[in-house]
Amino acid sequence: MLAYSGGLDTSVILRWLIDKGYEVVAFIADVGQEEDFAAARAKALKIGAAKVLVDDLREEFVTHYIFHALKGNAVYEGRYLMGTSLARPLIAKAQVQAAQRERARFVAHGATGKGNDQVRFELAYCALDPGLRVISPWKDPEFLARFRGRTDLIEYARQKGIPVKATASKPYSEDDNLMHISHEAGVLEDPAEAAEKAVYSKTRSPMDAPDRATRVSIRFRDGLPVEVRNLSDGTVKRKPLELFTYLNALGGLNGVGRVDMVENRYVGIKSRGVYESPGAHILWAAHRDLEGIAMDKEVMHLRDMLAPKFAELIYNGFWFSPEMDFLLSAINRSQELIDGEVVVELYKGNVMPVSRSSPTSFYSKDLSSMDREGGFDQTDSAGFIRINGLRLRAHKAIIDKRGLGSYKVEE
Amino acid sequence: MLAYSGGLDTSVILRWLIDKGYEVVAFIADVGQEEDFAAARAKALKIGAAKVLVDDLREEFVTHYIFHALKGNAVYEGRYLMGTSLARPLIAKAQVQAAQRERARFVAHGATGKGNDQVRFELAYCALDPGLRVISPWKDPEFLARFRGRTDLIEYARQKGIPVKATASKPYSEDDNLMHISHEAGVLEDPAEAAEKAVYSKTRSPMDAPDRATRVSIRFRDGLPVEVRNLSDGTVKRKPLELFTYLNALGGLNGVGRVDMVENRYVGIKSRGVYESPGAHILWAAHRDLEGIAMDKEVMHLRDMLAPKFAELIYNGFWFSPEMDFLLSAINRSQELIDGEVVVELYKGNVMPVSRSSPTSFYSKDLSSMDREGGFDQTDSAGFIRINGLRLRAHKAIIDKRGLGSYKVEE
Amino acid sequence: MLAYSGGLDTSVILRWLIDKGYEVVAFIADVGQEEDFAAARAKALKIGAAKVLVDDLREEFVTHYIFHALKGNAVYEGRYLMGTSLARPLIAKAQVQAAQRERARFVAHGATGKGNDQVRFELAYCALDPGLRVISPWKDPEFLARFRGRTDLIEYARQKGIPVKATASKPYSEDDNLMHISHEAGVLEDPAEAAEKAVYSKTRSPMDAPDRATRVSIRFRDGLPVEVRNLSDGTVKRKPLELFTYLNALGGLNGVGRVDMVENRYVGIKSRGVYESPGAHILWAAHRDLEGIAMDKEVMHLRDMLAPKFAELIYNGFWFSPEMDFLLSAINRSQELIDGEVVVELYKGNVMPVSRSSPTSFYSKDLSSMDREGGFDQTDSAGFIRINGLRLRAHKAIIDKRGLGSYKVEE
Amino acid sequence: MLAYSGGLDTSVILRWLIDKGYEVVAFIADVGQEEDFAAARAKALKIGAAKVLVDDLREEFVTHYIFHALKGNAVYEGRYLMGTSLARPLIAKAQVQAAQRERARFVAHGATGKGNDQVRFELAYCALDPGLRVISPWKDPEFLARFRGRTDLIEYARQKGIPVKATASKPYSEDDNLMHISHEAGVLEDPAEAAEKAVYSKTRSPMDAPDRATRVSIRFRDGLPVEVRNLSDGTVKRKPLELFTYLNALGGLNGVGRVDMVENRYVGIKSRGVYESPGAHILWAAHRDLEGIAMDKEVMHLRDMLAPKFAELIYNGFWFSPEMDFLLSAINRSQELIDGEVVVELYKGNVMPVSRSSPTSFYSKDLSSMDREGGFDQTDSAGFIRINGLRLRAHKAIIDKRGLGSYKVEE
Repeated sequence: MLAYSGGLDTSVILRWLIDKGYEVVAFIADVGQEEDFAAARAKALKIGAAKVLVDDLREEFVTHYIFHALKGNAVYEGRYLMGTSLARPLIAKAQVQAAQRERARFVAHGATGKGNDQVRFELAYCALDPGLRVISPWKDPEFLARFRGRTDLIEYARQKGIPVKATASKPYSEDDNLMHISHEAGVLEDPAEAAEKAVYSKTRSPMDAPDRATRVSIRFRDGLPVEVRNLSDGTVKRKPLELFTYLNALGGLNGVGRVDMVENRYVGIKSRGVYESPGAHILWAAHRDLEGIAMDKEVMHLRDMLAPKFAELIYNGFWFSPEMDFLLSAINRSQELIDGEVVVELYKGNVMPVSRSSPTSFYSKDLSSMDREGGFDQTDSAGFIRINGLRLRAHKAIIDKRGLGSYKVEE
Repeated sequence: MLAYSGGLDTSVILRWLIDKGYEVVAFIADVGQEEDFAAARAKALKIGAAKVLVDDLREEFVTHYIFHALKGNAVYEGRYLMGTSLARPLIAKAQVQAAQRERARFVAHGATGKGNDQVRFELAYCALDPGLRVISPWKDPEFLARFRGRTDLIEYARQKGIPVKATASKPYSEDDNLMHISHEAGVLEDPAEAAEKAVYSKTRSPMDAPDRATRVSIRFRDGLPVEVRNLSDGTVKRKPLELFTYLNALGGLNGVGRVDMVENRYVGIKSRGVYESPGAHILWAAHRDLEGIAMDKEVMHLRDMLAPKFAELIYNGFWFSPEMDFLLSAINRSQELIDGEVVVELYKGNVMPVSRSSPTSFYSKDLSSMDREGGFDQTDSAGFIRINGLRLRAHKAIIDKRGLGSYKVEE
Repeated sequence: MLAYSGGLDTSVILRWLIDKGYEVVAFIADVGQEEDFAAARAKALKIGAAKVLVDDLREEFVTHYIFHALKGNAVYEGRYLMGTSLARPLIAKAQVQAAQRERARFVAHGATGKGNDQVRFELAYCALDPGLRVISPWKDPEFLARFRGRTDLIEYARQKGIPVKATASKPYSEDDNLMHISHEAGVLEDPAEAAEKAVYSKTRSPMDAPDRATRVSIRFRDGLPVEVRNLSDGTVKRKPLELFTYLNALGGLNGVGRVDMVENRYVGIKSRGVYESPGAHILWAAHRDLEGIAMDKEVMHLRDMLAPKFAELIYNGFWFSPEMDFLLSAINRSQELIDGEVVVELYKGNVMPVSRSSPTSFYSKDLSSMDREGGFDQTDSAGFIRINGLRLRAHKAIIDKRGLGSYKVEE
Repeated sequence: MLAYSGGLDTSVILRWLIDKGYEVVAFIADVGQEEDFAAARAKALKIGAAKVLVDDLREEFVTHYIFHALKGNAVYEGRYLMGTSLARPLIAKAQVQAAQRERARFVAHGATGKGNDQVRFELAYCALDPGLRVISPWKDPEFLARFRGRTDLIEYARQKGIPVKATASKPYSEDDNLMHISHEAGVLEDPAEAAEKAVYSKTRSPMDAPDRATRVSIRFRDGLPVEVRNLSDGTVKRKPLELFTYLNALGGLNGVGRVDMVENRYVGIKSRGVYESPGAHILWAAHRDLEGIAMDKEVMHLRDMLAPKFAELIYNGFWFSPEMDFLLSAINRSQELIDGEVVVELYKGNVMPVSRSSPTSFYSKDLSSMDREGGFDQTDSAGFIRINGLRLRAHKAIIDKRGLGSYKVEE
């Protein structure tokens, strides 16, 4: 069961596996990428696939992967929303299920041996069906010896009658799906070189975006988006896939969601990535803003400490894992009260929350028990501060006595 | 020794303290706020201050407070860069030193009893001179009974001959300094109401900002900014205060650094704050970007977990504390290799890092020992993944056996 | 609704409240302390209580408080198992429920104003019924002025005809319940003075304990103890309260569970506590040992990082709180596979796990899928290590180049 | 440069490397293990080593490895003090330095491919000299094919004239050094089987230990032990190596420091280990006890959260790493005030702190500034609690309103 994309790499792998004596089923996952699935199916069959399966995973991608990651404010190294990282375990899961249905004993993928995707695919295989054997050509010494670069692949394709696109491929690699498109490697590899405008494809440049802001209201229930309302034209979207696609369009139009960064791959290599994830950025900002009003302070501060770990697990491919179960149990609990509505302005690259309301807010006027209690007595603060200052006084007395007298901040 | 601002509240407090029999020295801290210090001095003397001290703290504010917070990526609840939180301990420190010089036995401030600033002032007093007694009128029952609102203050001022500005004050409260201006309370209190354009004063609206982007190069050494270069016009700034002030101007012009959020005060109240901190936002984004290329992955991930705590300590007023010493020791160490240069584009509210380079980068071509080692062998990944997958396989086998079979992410 | 213990303090408070015009219901919680509840009831009625309620909370204390804390390995500052901290929220909850049933509008307790218990009681009141008003005499200036020490209390008791025990009270204070007995203050206050043997009451001195070890097998299901089997004499206990009481007896006999430490109170005071919690120590050690075999590594390491926070929340009185909900959701999930059996030896103060087995263990021979996979290929380690070493090589090259060349561990 | 122990494995490896054409220097590290170093040297020369180096690392092991780990309270998975984990980076460092002196281009070791030690050796090589090439026979397919078990090694030894000890080796493997001896694998592999008494060699059984307790006073300066005083017989030790060796003897005599546990190896395998580390256990307990009195609460709670990570880094072999530098900077700072003296009782397996004093303690009577402040005002607690309860009241009101009404602890 080969995860098949229709591109040059997996087409060569498909044929190579057949040549090695495997009966190969090509598994094509539709996670929202721009692709002619009928053409890909035909191509796989032409190359010799015993069967081709095309699985539409878009709905599940949005509801169970994208929305769950956003619910936990997942962001890797401060910026990357992980469109690729989230798609991989879903594709792997569907591929494993297909393998089980078709009684395949091997699963294969075309991810390279220096990247994160290989890890994400293979850890998901481990976690979902430890009995499956993994074939990973880009880590196979024989395959690596045979195919040293793109030229070898093209040559092999020509020999085997595999169609190769006439158009020159882009001078960098991309991964496209519902949540984002990534651009990396090739001419983008040097982090000291600014990315050219032409690199971007899902978002307009902020400089070319409309001169008027678009106001959007987003409603959440239990931390998940349930309604998007365009306040400029009245459009309303409620179904997850539609809602998300709509935000992608709005965000893209307004130049929202571009990231250009150097990140740390799981395998210890630093890598420059250029990303576009317009809809996800809007939801991320709106969700975070809503938490400001609806989430308890101590829950937020604990969760914020764990959020980098949550992102790391996603990025590294531990979506299906006991430690993810552990973290997600807490995160899910934290979202039970994250209900309400946020209005954001989209404008030339900015997502600006401008107002928010929540039935679970501290501010709500019908929290009558708070009123009954008389709210806040300022003299309480005196005791609060004195008690918090107690150990600071003692500390100062001790360091003075020991002659250590200064604080680190003063050095 | 009264922290004196020249405004209505501290002027009334000054007089009230004199009436209570104290000899009062008015301490005016210049942390970069827009203020006529000569007029404030004259006013204090007129009211009856025994002495007035004006302390220019701007240089120290930039180098030891703002830059140190940015070095640790301090940001409270995901958005607030803490311009006010950082100024308070500095003012308190200078006030304590003045009290020690003048042999004052009491320190007083005019911060309210429901806010964060009272805590920041008083914890700093505790940490720096536990022997000083604190007078905090807005937590004093007698003062609170006497002054129930602004009208009482004005009435008292009239009685005592304290000049009151004729101009109507703003319908919300502000705190202004080098790093930011904050706007809160009053008409801004309802988080469901968008802030009006007129609220903002340090930044242009992104919509009114220039139509062309400004490119700025920022150079860091040990995590601290040491040079700003405007690539459009060649301006170069190197002295900390100048460099920061220049970025404030550039950022303000380009609509950078606005935040509108609901945050959690230390005293357990949620509060809506509107902030403008243009220069700090630029530095924050550039610094974070540089870390992408120059910081070790594991250091970054550990630090990211602690960064919310670092911010919480600043926000809550524990700038001078043993736990800050603890955290800062680690943070300082993490910055020793954060050297290099980041180019950012400022454009209508956006700060977009577009390129970066560092002598401590993994990418550097003269890291010849990396080359000599042959870099990366893709077949290594096979073992890496299999070993990481080992416990996932075991876990799956166990949950299947126990009939627990699903992962949390699938629920 | 007064939390009433039958002792001098709460008897005086009971009467004082009546004198202040309150109608007082005395609420007596049975959490397993040694107490003559009939006598306490009679005493309260004699003093003038409108009603006396005695609530047997022992079963709930064991199943919902003690076992849940042990499930999460709660231990404060490395040693204290929190027998007092856990009883407080339970008493407060039962008291609140009693107040609601009896339509009481005030809840009162006799905890001092310098300790942790006042916080635990009052935070639980807040969390369970914010509408109730709290009366806390030991923080009431009038009460404090009236009763400056034990002599005043005794004098008042004599005046009011409240019986005072003829026997001299102990020269330190104690808190006794099913889980532990604590001893603190008074002659124990000086941490440089060793506690005398006579202080201990629930455990024999290790030196007086039997010369032969007792072997006990403890079975857990989902992290909770479900069976204790004395391997020496065949005794078996399965009901939570019986099981726990039995372990208390065994532990006490064998000198297990003593702690003598200096701890940090929530209110910022350091305090020396001497504790005895025999049964809880045995369960703690056995549970931790079982986790060694049955818990996933990454879950354990994440949980271990959060365990101090879990303990802190319990200690500080945040048992009923959203942040406890957050943490406990994760902890509960982590315990779903903690099934199995641990054999411990109890011997003169020691609890020594000597063997353990688990149906959810990695070791289990019927994990056939692991076998099928061939287990572990040593050559995988080569790649695993090389990839983990990659960033260390780069780091070394960088620090050499920058002349920073040494590691902190070498300083 | 081969890390040589004198045992069968590294003797075979030594010869095998010579057969492969390498010129081999045997590097013998003295970390306090029981070994006849002269015999080992002679054996290596007889086998054909070009040179033999014996390096006495005991002093450095105590002062820079053992004491630093104890200073940070390092303990892996709650129990293991890491005697082996700490020795490995030291041996590797000395081996690297020897390689540099001797201009060796390869470093080799005899650790197996399924364990932790290979990782610790090789990560240290990476971190200290990335240019060195690593030879690890137990991960080399050729070596693994040649030597499938102990029989093959003995057979080869016989062929090559390598002396093999006549005595039957133990039915499990051991690692011995100054800090501990470990026993694992072989008959100990089944965690359900209790270890036999004969396994232990550095400690008496608690049951055979003296019937009288030994009182020892330990003095620390900056978190490091500087003096041990046996209160029973007046013995005093101050030099690190002597002090530590003395505590090993005392602890061993009193049955202190045994651990029997299942732990998680870095490579994802669970493993049962039986350990004896008498001196280290005494210091660990005494140091932790002293922190109770001398360490600030917030520092302790932060540090306690990071302590599992500190231990994990040591266990996994990241002793020389930037993340260790990061953590250790904070830990070192936290120890600057950890001065004072702890008295512990050693008795049949127990280490019981009974009293402690510190010049940096809160309790110290000459902290006159604390006294001057009048200490603690109980009415302060009222405000402290009300403010801490504020968000709990709000939370309760919200969950009631939303019908979510219960806390996790009640489920």
